[in-house]
Amino acid sequence: MQPQYQMGYDRAITVFSPDGRLYQVEYAREAVKRGTTAVGIKCSDGVVLIVDKRVTSRLLEQASIEKIFKIDEHIGVASSGLVGDARSLVDRARIEAQINRVSYDEMIDVEILAKKLCDHMQTYTQFGGARPYGTALLIAGISGGEPRLFETDPSGTLLEYKATGIGTGRPAVMKIFEEEYAPDAPCSEAIMLGLKALGAATEGKFDVGTVEMGIILTEDTQFRKMERNEVQSFVERYQP
Amino acid sequence: MQPQYQMGYDRAITVFSPDGRLYQVEYAREAVKRGTTAVGIKCSDGVVLIVDKRVTSRLLEQASIEKIFKIDEHIGVASSGLVGDARSLVDRARIEAQINRVSYDEMIDVEILAKKLCDHMQTYTQFGGARPYGTALLIAGISGGEPRLFETDPSGTLLEYKATGIGTGRPAVMKIFEEEYAPDAPCSEAIMLGLKALGAATEGKFDVGTVEMGIILTEDTQFRKMERNEVQSFVERYQP
Amino acid sequence: MQPQYQMGYDRAITVFSPDGRLYQVEYAREAVKRGTTAVGIKCSDGVVLIVDKRVTSRLLEQASIEKIFKIDEHIGVASSGLVGDARSLVDRARIEAQINRVSYDEMIDVEILAKKLCDHMQTYTQFGGARPYGTALLIAGISGGEPRLFETDPSGTLLEYKATGIGTGRPAVMKIFEEEYAPDAPCSEAIMLGLKALGAATEGKFDVGTVEMGIILTEDTQFRKMERNEVQSFVERYQP
Amino acid sequence: MQPQYQMGYDRAITVFSPDGRLYQVEYAREAVKRGTTAVGIKCSDGVVLIVDKRVTSRLLEQASIEKIFKIDEHIGVASSGLVGDARSLVDRARIEAQINRVSYDEMIDVEILAKKLCDHMQTYTQFGGARPYGTALLIAGISGGEPRLFETDPSGTLLEYKATGIGTGRPAVMKIFEEEYAPDAPCSEAIMLGLKALGAATEGKFDVGTVEMGIILTEDTQFRKMERNEVQSFVERYQP
Amino acid sequence: MQPQYQMGYDRAITVFSPDGRLYQVEYAREAVKRGTTAVGIKCSDGVVLIVDKRVTSRLLEQASIEKIFKIDEHIGVASSGLVGDARSLVDRARIEAQINRVSYDEMIDVEILAKKLCDHMQTYTQFGGARPYGTALLIAGISGGEPRLFETDPSGTLLEYKATGIGTGRPAVMKIFEEEYAPDAPCSEAIMLGLKALGAATEGKFDVGTVEMGIILTEDTQFRKMERNEVQSFVERYQP
Amino acid sequence: MQPQYQMGYDRAITVFSPDGRLYQVEYAREAVKRGTTAVGIKCSDGVVLIVDKRVTSRLLEQASIEKIFKIDEHIGVASSGLVGDARSLVDRARIEAQINRVSYDEMIDVEILAKKLCDHMQTYTQFGGARPYGTALLIAGISGGEPRLFETDPSGTLLEYKATGIGTGRPAVMKIFEEEYAPDAPCSEAIMLGLKALGAATEGKFDVGTVEMGIILTEDTQFRKMERNEVQSFVERYQP
Amino acid sequence: MQPQYQMGYDRAITVFSPDGRLYQVEYAREAVKRGTTAVGIKCSDGVVLIVDKRVTSRLLEQASIEKIFKIDEHIGVASSGLVGDARSLVDRARIEAQINRVSYDEMIDVEILAKKLCDHMQTYTQFGGARPYGTALLIAGISGGEPRLFETDPSGTLLEYKATGIGTGRPAVMKIFEEEYAPDAPCSEAIMLGLKALGAATEGKFDVGTVEMGIILTEDTQFRKMERNEVQSFVERYQP
Repeated sequence: MQPQYQMGYDRAITVFSPDGRLYQVEYAREAVKRGTTAVGIKCSDGVVLIVDKRVTSRLLEQASIEKIFKIDEHIGVASSGLVGDARSLVDRARIEAQINRVSYDEMIDVEILAKKLCDHMQTYTQFGGARPYGTALLIAGISGGEPRLFETDPSGTLLEYKATGIGTGRPAVMKIFEEEYAPDAPCSEAIMLGLKALGAATEGKFDVGTVEMGIILTEDTQFRKMERNEVQSFVERYQP
Repeated sequence: MQPQYQMGYDRAITVFSPDGRLYQVEYAREAVKRGTTAVGIKCSDGVVLIVDKRVTSRLLEQASIEKIFKIDEHIGVASSGLVGDARSLVDRARIEAQINRVSYDEMIDVEILAKKLCDHMQTYTQFGGARPYGTALLIAGISGGEPRLFETDPSGTLLEYKATGIGTGRPAVMKIFEEEYAPDAPCSEAIMLGLKALGAATEGKFDVGTVEMGIILTEDTQFRKMERNEVQSFVERYQP
Repeated sequence: MQPQYQMGYDRAITVFSPDGRLYQVEYAREAVKRGTTAVGIKCSDGVVLIVDKRVTSRLLEQASIEKIFKIDEHIGVASSGLVGDARSLVDRARIEAQINRVSYDEMIDVEILAKKLCDHMQTYTQFGGARPYGTALLIAGISGGEPRLFETDPSGTLLEYKATGIGTGRPAVMKIFEEEYAPDAPCSEAIMLGLKALGAATEGKFDVGTVEMGIILTEDTQFRKMERNEVQSFVERYQP
Repeated sequence: MQPQYQMGYDRAITVFSPDGRLYQVEYAREAVKRGTTAVGIKCSDGVVLIVDKRVTSRLLEQASIEKIFKIDEHIGVASSGLVGDARSLVDRARIEAQINRVSYDEMIDVEILAKKLCDHMQTYTQFGGARPYGTALLIAGISGGEPRLFETDPSGTLLEYKATGIGTGRPAVMKIFEEEYAPDAPCSEAIMLGLKALGAATEGKFDVGTVEMGIILTEDTQFRKMERNEVQSFVERYQP
Repeated sequence: MQPQYQMGYDRAITVFSPDGRLYQVEYAREAVKRGTTAVGIKCSDGVVLIVDKRVTSRLLEQASIEKIFKIDEHIGVASSGLVGDARSLVDRARIEAQINRVSYDEMIDVEILAKKLCDHMQTYTQFGGARPYGTALLIAGISGGEPRLFETDPSGTLLEYKATGIGTGRPAVMKIFEEEYAPDAPCSEAIMLGLKALGAATEGKFDVGTVEMGIILTEDTQFRKMERNEVQSFVERYQP
Repeated sequence: MQPQYQMGYDRAITVFSPDGRLYQVEYAREAVKRGTTAVGIKCSDGVVLIVDKRVTSRLLEQASIEKIFKIDEHIGVASSGLVGDARSLVDRARIEAQINRVSYDEMIDVEILAKKLCDHMQTYTQFGGARPYGTALLIAGISGGEPRLFETDPSGTLLEYKATGIGTGRPAVMKIFEEEYAPDAPCSEAIMLGLKALGAATEGKFDVGTVEMGIILTEDTQFRKMERNEVQSFVERYQP
Repeated sequence: MQPQYQMGYDRAITVFSPDGRLYQVEYAREAVKRGTTAVGIKCSDGVVLIVDKRVTSRLLEQASIEKIFKIDEHIGVASSGLVGDARSLVDRARIEAQINRVSYDEMIDVEILAKKLCDHMQTYTQFGGARPYGTALLIAGISGGEPRLFETDPSGTLLEYKATGIGTGRPAVMKIFEEEYAPDAPCSEAIMLGLKALGAATEGKFDVGTVEMGIILTEDTQFRKMERNEVQSFVERYQP
């Protein structure tokens, strides 16, 4: 690989390398790998998203580091990577959701929304004049009564997971999920698994102030970010 | 060839090399060669498409790795190469099919659709500001009562095959087809031949969860992706 | 010449070399020289086009390798070079022909059509943002009762020949035509001369399946691609 | 890192480095680090902004060095970095505020305004043809009766702080705030803390002529730049 | 000059060299110098244009190598250099002539037409995104009862000559004209002088098939290309 | 700094250097430093502008070297740097002033005009496809009964001075102003101070023909360029 | 300076060199210095323009080398440098003059016209995608009863001279004018001075055929190019 990037195949998204790779897209994935860790888990009764916000200064308002976003009543998103890029994608997602409401008088299906975002991201890997998005998203929702959990990446690839993680802690997170994920567990248990995975990814360095949680249940299909006291009750139960 | 790509003839699609080659198009073909293996086979009574999805994690929802797409009632597509590029081409194909229905009140001919997609791909090999598509497609359909099976490549070349394969396993697949393909075999036999070819390409590493199948029969001209149990019945009969 | 292309005069069509050459156009001609061999011959009673399709796999549908195209009732074309580029030019030719029918209620003159295509190709040698066409065409038609046979090249140059060839076998073809072409021979004889030339170009490696023929006669001015059995009758008479 | 910028990954905002960084955005942050020091502090009863204008010539009209700007009645901004870029962002902020008044007949929420500015700045990190803004802003306002204090950076990242600083003196300022900031202190005390921090950042080199102050109180939600005599009363109380 | 073109001053038309030259325009002139030789001569009773077409293959239809073009009833043109470029300029000239007829209901003055073409060519030497025209033209016409003969070059310079030549044989042609041109000679004599000049330029290698002639007389101001037998009568009189 | 400009950070305005600088803007400032010296001084009763035109040839009409421009009745400008750029900015200023008259039926405030010009200049430091303005302006006017004197630079920075200078002699001018400027002096005294500063900057090489003066008084707010005899009366009083 | 142009500061007009120069504009001035010599002289009763056309071949129609152009009844222009560029500017000047007649029903003032041309030229020094004009103009006219004589250069700088010269012979011309120009001399004497200057510039190599003259008198304000016999009467009086 060494000689290829030295020859400039990685300077533009409109150029393939001789072995058919798009280096700029791969570098954008590196931006994601440098991001904070986020996990998503399908439960028997819904989907949960958990993020470690990695706050270090007491001067910072923790609420201003937003890593979980409500897109529409029935869809939520967790992000990792470039913060500004994530906000730009979240804005786009919210607009797509609103357009669907206005055009068809119904809420957008979570999979359709995820595909629309990925189509948008793909164009940034094929046309010149811009760079790919340096952001990955976990998209959670309920569709037809079923929990759905999608993961996007800078290339515009879309995959659905039972449980997954993005950001710097992904390897540690996935190791734990591969071993311990149980599809029949309710959200209350899934959250504890998620905290365990986050703990492994951050070497246990998180507390109630640095953790953000979102949840959507099949029974009401309402996505909501958890209140601090609710988060606290889970974090307190967590033992590394 | 060495000195030519060192001199930069391969950095832009708008530049020929001194021996009349378009390196960027050839590199895009490399992206296809890195893709999952897909095969298509004409049968006496239809066309079948079979793909190995190469799923490795139990956390991944296998259904979310989509390699076979229904374009219209009478046309299906299998893809290999960059996932986002494939979805972009599939979207385009579906729109072309719908335009034909609206404009002429009839379904688009599969060969006309294939040519339209290739014309589109060709422009990405001649004009600057974008890169060629890093994707190959197998396009299956029935036209005038006859099974049709087309293969596209990043240059916009269109060829029709009796049986063919794309992606990383193409050499292994073609070797088996050259030796064993029988034009008079019904789809049920062709599927077993396709599985044998896939098995050779993947060294036998596939099971019912990693294989996706699509079929269209001359008798009803309806393309459909096979259900899991239907796929299972074929995979169980397969012996490496 | 060595030092000039090393200095980058050949990286863009908008740049002349110090000796007044356009290297990108010359490289596009190389793409044509790598193409399949096609010949065209004026006869006493019409024009014939013959192409060797160079099919190697039994899995390929030979009909899908199209090298001879009917543009309008009275005009046919044979191509060599980049397949996608050829199809793009053929599409353009058909549209020009239809525009003429609609605008003037008469069929387009073959020479006017050929000039229009060449004007189009010339712009791709003068303006940036795209590459020249890597394709040559033989354009056959009847105009005012006379057989016409034009040859285009990537620079947009247009020449009319009594008999000519394009593609990899051109030198072998032209040698035979210079020696043996007879302007008074009817098409039936011209076809045999064309097969002899193709045989020399391909070292005799062609059969009925790899040869495609098109013909237009002065008596009915209808261009048609020959049926397989018609081609067969000529190929069987051919002796290398 | 050395070899990467030597290889040109830092010459364009549309190019990621192999480790997923955007060098041009990081360099824009350097422009901010070269700017004058500005601090913002949330108080129990409002928000204050204090800037050291670093005036050196007696010929310069100090009032013309504007580092604190009123955006709307209820929002003020302090800037550091490229002066022209700051004025451009301030103009944009004022227009957004006016648009909100005209469209919805109400004043824009300070957080919404801050996000709009950051969205705008983010686009300059993703699209070619321009450079990122070389400016950071502190945005102060009252929203729902609560003091708000946002900080933007060239990447379009938005964070809310209790107390923060931008420009060349940021490290010295943050050190003092981390140690001494008290959330319950009223603005009158916060100003003295801010002067102490500025003093540490400038090694005490400031007087009433070089300091600019802005304040907004929760009781009247009116942002105003302090008069010279008011500033003087605080500066006189300051003892390094 | 060596060091300057090595430093890239000749890679774009929008760049002057340090000594104020436009290398790309000079290289375009080289393309003209590689072209076939064309001569134009003012006579006492009109203007003649003579071109050597340099045909080498008996298979080529000599009429298809067109080097002399009728622009309008009263204006003709001979070209040298890139064939496609010449055709493009001829098309433009014909359109300009038609526009004049439609707009003012009179034929365009030959000098005005020549200036319009040169203005067009000049823009290709000042603006980026295209290359200069690699073609020179001789423009012959009658204006106000007087024979006119203009020569254009790739820079857009326009000059009027009594007798001149373009293309590869220009030096040989001009030497003979400087010595032997007689302004009072009628066209019949001027043609013989032109043939002598062409003979010197081509070392006598031309015959009736390779020579093309155009003429316009003051008495009828009708430009016409000479018929083959008329050309033949002059060529037969020619003795090298 | 040496290694940075060698690495090309100074070739485009859209690129920051690693230390957050915009080299192209700094180089544009060098163009100003090469310009003729201009000074501006606020007086107790108005503002004066004085320029040394540095005329060397008796053949030149001194009036044609215009360095002081009337923008509107109440605003005047002195320029230094690239002459064509200055004229372009002056044209823009005049149009802005006229637009204000037409839109609001009142004269534009001098500070608002100065900001508009700087906003315009800032865009040339952020967007590609053009270079920054190589010109600085001194803008003099009366606003609300007060003399105003602004200085712009190529970055779009705007500062107000009591007394200042631009161009090659700025260091000499500022040294004298720092030492001797008296804010209470009337314009008649300020002019003598300005001549002294100009004399220091030009080593006394100026006479009535090379000096241009403009003045605006608070009493009538009419900017006017002084007549030659008026200039002469001051120059004669000047003793180096 | 050597190292700077080697580092590429002179490859684009949108790039300043580190010392604030625009090399491309300076190189364009070199194109002017390579041009034919033209002089302009203000007389007590008008303005004269004289050009040496430097004709070398008897085959060239001297009238076709046009270096003096009538722009409108009351304005004439002499040019030096790139011929095509000059014609482009002359066309523009004529159109501006016509627009003024149509818009305001009066003839354009010569100084306003000169400024408009220079504004146009300035834009070619600031924006990318084109090169500066490689042409200088002398613009002669009568305005308010006074003779006016302007000189433009590629940067868009405009100066008025009593007497001046452009092109290759400028140094020789200016030397004679500095020594011998008399503002009170009538045009008849000024022409003899101009011929003397031209003679010095061309080492006496000019005759009536190579000299072109234009004149405008204050009494009738009609610019006209002199007839050959009128030019002859002056040239005959000239003694080197």
